[in-house]
Amino acid sequence: MASRKTPDSTRRSDRSRRAIHDAALALVGEVGYGRTTIEGIAARAGVGKQTIYRWWPSKAAVLMEAFLDLADRRAAGTGRTGAVEEGRAGQAEGGAAEPGGAAVPDTGDLAADLKAVLRATVDELNDPVTAAPVRALAAEGIVDPALGAQFVGRLLDPRTRPYVTRLRAAQEAGEVRADVDPHIALELLLAPLTHRWLLRNLPLTHAYADRVVDHALRGLSPMP
Amino acid sequence: MASRKTPDSTRRSDRSRRAIHDAALALVGEVGYGRTTIEGIAARAGVGKQTIYRWWPSKAAVLMEAFLDLADRRAAGTGRTGAVEEGRAGQAEGGAAEPGGAAVPDTGDLAADLKAVLRATVDELNDPVTAAPVRALAAEGIVDPALGAQFVGRLLDPRTRPYVTRLRAAQEAGEVRADVDPHIALELLLAPLTHRWLLRNLPLTHAYADRVVDHALRGLSPMP
Repeated sequence: MASRKTPDSTRRSDRSRRAIHDAALALVGEVGYGRTTIEGIAARAGVGKQTIYRWWPSKAAVLMEAFLDLADRRAAGTGRTGAVEEGRAGQAEGGAAEPGGAAVPDTGDLAADLKAVLRATVDELNDPVTAAPVRALAAEGIVDPALGAQFVGRLLDPRTRPYVTRLRAAQEAGEVRADVDPHIALELLLAPLTHRWLLRNLPLTHAYADRVVDHALRGLSPMP
Repeated sequence: MASRKTPDSTRRSDRSRRAIHDAALALVGEVGYGRTTIEGIAARAGVGKQTIYRWWPSKAAVLMEAFLDLADRRAAGTGRTGAVEEGRAGQAEGGAAEPGGAAVPDTGDLAADLKAVLRATVDELNDPVTAAPVRALAAEGIVDPALGAQFVGRLLDPRTRPYVTRLRAAQEAGEVRADVDPHIALELLLAPLTHRWLLRNLPLTHAYADRVVDHALRGLSPMP
């Protein structure tokens, strides 16, 4: 991306990009997806709107990248500092199977491994900083199939693929029945958490994540 | 509601109410929740906006009632005709535990009973007539906690309570472990379906509903 740029211009680009991301996330959380505009993002970020149009094809693309960047930074614990690429590199060091996808540990204890990552997912879903933008994006994805497909392809799939890998390893180890589709197993584990998050009807806690894992694994494991 | 009205004025009220419901559903499907207004609904329904303000406290209230009415009419198979109360009565004849809640049959075969109602839920979620308004309401509920609470309290809870009743009966019959929270059991059954519906990432079919019931019940039943 920065191969033909000087170090200084790369730093300036990174600063502008980060300012645009922050402005986009703040606006979508404050006024919603529908009333967030490229002009509004540019004004808040202190850049010309042509800068945004040069880097992104649409408002949805800006927001999606801004959210992915935020999620990566938070997962990497780099908070509000550091460039996008640093954030991604930081997460990769944590053992992610791919950019944006948190690794599922493989200690040999499937239940413990799944509880660890699903508890982290509970914390992420309950994170007040990401709540407004991710709710706005999820809401827009429900009514806009093109954005929904981006939400799935860029945000959800990379984050859920490590589960499928871990569940396949568990199948090979004989801990999950061979006739179980790992994608369905993943849905049985994740969907109850996102259901509570979307509906806010019951507490989304570590204890709930543990219970879901216990029930689901009992249903997926071979008969004793 | 109609106790002090003449039969004619009741019929006129029912007709206006239905016209307002239809206008609200059509608009929210066409332009989204944010751009649907009381004025727009009134104009499309051919009533004065004061008529709407007299009957409902907010746009959200109109839409929620319109959607509940539509869902009831479709569940009762009364299509586009008949008044709200007739629609509700029609469904009650089908064995609903309460207004808006489709009964879960109790034939003594828990898996078959759950598959029957979850297949019907799949059909309802895939229904192209209700898709636009229910997606618009669900999306708005994600970003608006007050509307979300209405969505849960008025739409979801009455429809899911019969499952809890059926699952409790199954516990008493020894088919579901006594230490299982029926509300969590319900989430394990329903959340995977709504997850696919919201994300549109994988086919939402009867076969999928059957598979979810099989896995979930295996996890919830006592050890053989």
